[in-house]
Amino acid sequence: MTPRTIGVTEVALRDAHQSLMATRMAMEDMVDACADIDQAGFWSVECWGGATYDACIRFLNEDPWQRLRTFRELMPNSRLQMLLRGQNLLGYRHYEDGVVERFVEKSAENGMDVFRVFDALNDPRNMARAMQAVKKTGKHAQGTICYTISPLHTTEGYIKLAGQLLDMGAESIALKDMAALLQPQAAYDVVKGIKDTYGDVQVNVHCHSTTGVTLVSLMKAIEAGADVVDTAISSMSLGPGHNPTESLVAMLEGTEYTTDLDMDRLLRIRDHFAKVRPKYAQFESATLVDTDIFSSQIPGGMLSNMESQLKAQGAGDRIREVMAEVPLVKADAGHPPLVTPSSQIVGTQAVFNVLMGKYKVLTGEFADLMLGYYGECIGERNPEVVEVARAQTKKEPITQRPADLLEPEWDKLVAEATALPGNDGSDEDVLTYAMFPSVAPGFFENRADGPKNVGKTPEQMASQAAAKGDDDRAVKGPITYKVSLGGREHNVVVERA
Amino acid sequence: MTPRTIGVTEVALRDAHQSLMATRMAMEDMVDACADIDQAGFWSVECWGGATYDACIRFLNEDPWQRLRTFRELMPNSRLQMLLRGQNLLGYRHYEDGVVERFVEKSAENGMDVFRVFDALNDPRNMARAMQAVKKTGKHAQGTICYTISPLHTTEGYIKLAGQLLDMGAESIALKDMAALLQPQAAYDVVKGIKDTYGDVQVNVHCHSTTGVTLVSLMKAIEAGADVVDTAISSMSLGPGHNPTESLVAMLEGTEYTTDLDMDRLLRIRDHFAKVRPKYAQFESATLVDTDIFSSQIPGGMLSNMESQLKAQGAGDRIREVMAEVPLVKADAGHPPLVTPSSQIVGTQAVFNVLMGKYKVLTGEFADLMLGYYGECIGERNPEVVEVARAQTKKEPITQRPADLLEPEWDKLVAEATALPGNDGSDEDVLTYAMFPSVAPGFFENRADGPKNVGKTPEQMASQAAAKGDDDRAVKGPITYKVSLGGREHNVVVERA
Repeated sequence: MTPRTIGVTEVALRDAHQSLMATRMAMEDMVDACADIDQAGFWSVECWGGATYDACIRFLNEDPWQRLRTFRELMPNSRLQMLLRGQNLLGYRHYEDGVVERFVEKSAENGMDVFRVFDALNDPRNMARAMQAVKKTGKHAQGTICYTISPLHTTEGYIKLAGQLLDMGAESIALKDMAALLQPQAAYDVVKGIKDTYGDVQVNVHCHSTTGVTLVSLMKAIEAGADVVDTAISSMSLGPGHNPTESLVAMLEGTEYTTDLDMDRLLRIRDHFAKVRPKYAQFESATLVDTDIFSSQIPGGMLSNMESQLKAQGAGDRIREVMAEVPLVKADAGHPPLVTPSSQIVGTQAVFNVLMGKYKVLTGEFADLMLGYYGECIGERNPEVVEVARAQTKKEPITQRPADLLEPEWDKLVAEATALPGNDGSDEDVLTYAMFPSVAPGFFENRADGPKNVGKTPEQMASQAAAKGDDDRAVKGPITYKVSLGGREHNVVVERA
Repeated sequence: MTPRTIGVTEVALRDAHQSLMATRMAMEDMVDACADIDQAGFWSVECWGGATYDACIRFLNEDPWQRLRTFRELMPNSRLQMLLRGQNLLGYRHYEDGVVERFVEKSAENGMDVFRVFDALNDPRNMARAMQAVKKTGKHAQGTICYTISPLHTTEGYIKLAGQLLDMGAESIALKDMAALLQPQAAYDVVKGIKDTYGDVQVNVHCHSTTGVTLVSLMKAIEAGADVVDTAISSMSLGPGHNPTESLVAMLEGTEYTTDLDMDRLLRIRDHFAKVRPKYAQFESATLVDTDIFSSQIPGGMLSNMESQLKAQGAGDRIREVMAEVPLVKADAGHPPLVTPSSQIVGTQAVFNVLMGKYKVLTGEFADLMLGYYGECIGERNPEVVEVARAQTKKEPITQRPADLLEPEWDKLVAEATALPGNDGSDEDVLTYAMFPSVAPGFFENRADGPKNVGKTPEQMASQAAAKGDDDRAVKGPITYKVSLGGREHNVVVERA
């Protein structure tokens, strides 16, 4: 029997460094791997998204659109893939439909092929316009299910959501597991359910590796019929990142499934990033494997957020109370998946409830969530808390699609963006301003300085390697000290002989 | 349907620290976890073996028998498990049968319950006496298949070997994958084959996680009927170690299988070792995932051995030639699994072949391997190389069981051991001397000094943590420098203000 070929999406250029090193990787540390990535046989190459866009203009002084065009040029044979937050695009608010259309159009024009469209609340209405816009460009519109666990989330519910995404024209369905919560049996059940219900629709599965269990989930998803899975080259894998690409290849050897990946290319990609990764060590978290989320239901990033909020209030000892409060707040909000931004919104409200009394003070975002301004969740919202939100904000609850409330805003965005020093007058710049209005002005102004690499320089890496052999307490380079000697103070430069 | 309960062997106390931190963990860093390990519901607790025994007397000044008795006392409800190198016991040579019997008897007497008996060449004759000895004590005799990949190793061959082990009275069969080579389909096929052929025999599966793929292999082994699998608590897992215990639990949730593990206990065990592991950071390797072995067939540890041998000869640039030579030498030797000691023997000979010409000089060990003094391999040995070995060593090839050539040696060992200063006259001390004749004398002499912890002290950990916040190049404590100033030399103490 000919084995069935499983497609692979390589995430090294986007989600891997986002998850492992706070999205800090500079384009110059990626370009040398692109030829091999382009030729390795991936189904697609994920390389763009909200956090990379943000990091480009906030930390790296890189034009994200230029990054996209460079990827396009360096990987002419690949499907370039991006993650798009539905009506939020790459920003944190709802955009008016005209902006959504323009953003998608420009992304396609600059080289994007596959748009993975998702919404944090799984509200199909927040994905519909972006999907439509993608269809209009002729590119690949992928509808996304954000996977989570709650008393209300069921296999049937996910299958139904897949149907809604297909109804809006999704060319494929992504099962997206941001928190490494997708256990093997659930992976099997959801994928099998989608395949059984809707026939031969393409299913992509995206997992993080945080809980140590999701390579098994990918195996089960493949057994259930999944067509494409997401992995990261081994030197950019594991921990809060993804399962290693080479391990996936090894996993399928001898089975009824195979990949068409070129192992020699994979090893060159691996070796490239093995050299690059240590440059960004200061941005890495220490987490290697963490299964706490299965019992706490609280993603690791959310937990550390809440801890630092508590500490800032001198209440670091109340984390257990907050952890017990989270599921209650989540239930009151109708069981949103806990991902950006819902995780921050729910977490901060849980902190407020513990410190100031239950729903005594709502954050603006939590009030909006309760009033429907982020869209609909799977569950009903607690009417008593909705009433508190209404009373506090004087805003009325809504049931329509949040973006329906927005006026056309493109012309206003153009006017504001083009007034900024350094703006180049392109639609791309308008979109950058639209996505990150507080960061874009600084970026436009300094863009001419060119890209900034926040990783360690080759010189720093070399001196660090040299120092590693030394005693822990030794001086590692020339340092000027104030030294008192015989009652007089001197400036003394000290360095290794 | 009631799910089938999968037993779990926790390896944190033996193979995990052997694989992750060169077997350096001191008993004092384990005792506080024992109560939780004892109550967590493991099928067995692996806690003793050759490398831990060796490390006890070589580095830690601990009596390995005392360690065993302490484990016995602290874990009264657990099956304690050890790894036994068949006729080699815990040493590196073949022992005469009387010594084998005595060693097993004493191990049982001191508290051992499950003996996992293996031979590096998979030669059943090298396991038979140890198995017999275990049966005689009434303890659990587990016969072991060392898993490897070669042109001669087949599923059928492994099934046949399982039968031979059962014929010698094995109460269970262990499928032991030291190099993380066991891919999911093979795991399924071998376990299924054993179950289909021999009925309801207990099968245990042991995998390392180096290649990133073996948690999937455990899943497939379980689907094929495996009864017990080996894992390590997450804070002592991954890399060259094992799959995380908590991830295994999560993997099985919702499936037809379950574990009886107590998650609260697991989390306490995890937290204990999360605190301990950083103390031994200097012994850890950087490998997180490495799939090279699938193509090179050369385990990571063996590769680094060969590299350092080449460098010592000023021939570091010839590693590629040596890597190409390894499979040829392995084939000439009849395809032994590449594990201790066969990996060192084959690797060193490959280095010799490249540096001095093909089989111009044989190591004594390789000659012995070619002449049958380690036992039989799956394949025939190259007769031309056997002839070279004969000519060089003036020894004749043998076909009988190597230990059959040995004279009774117990009385001689007793005489030699009891003559050593510090020997306490016990059979246990004789056995320690028998296992490690060059290390035991020093250990006996210094034993009274008590255990030595080679991990960082709490003070070192604290000062390290404090220093971490400082700039990389900063002085971390008071240091005295010789400083020349105005032509005169001064001793100057420098520290942070």
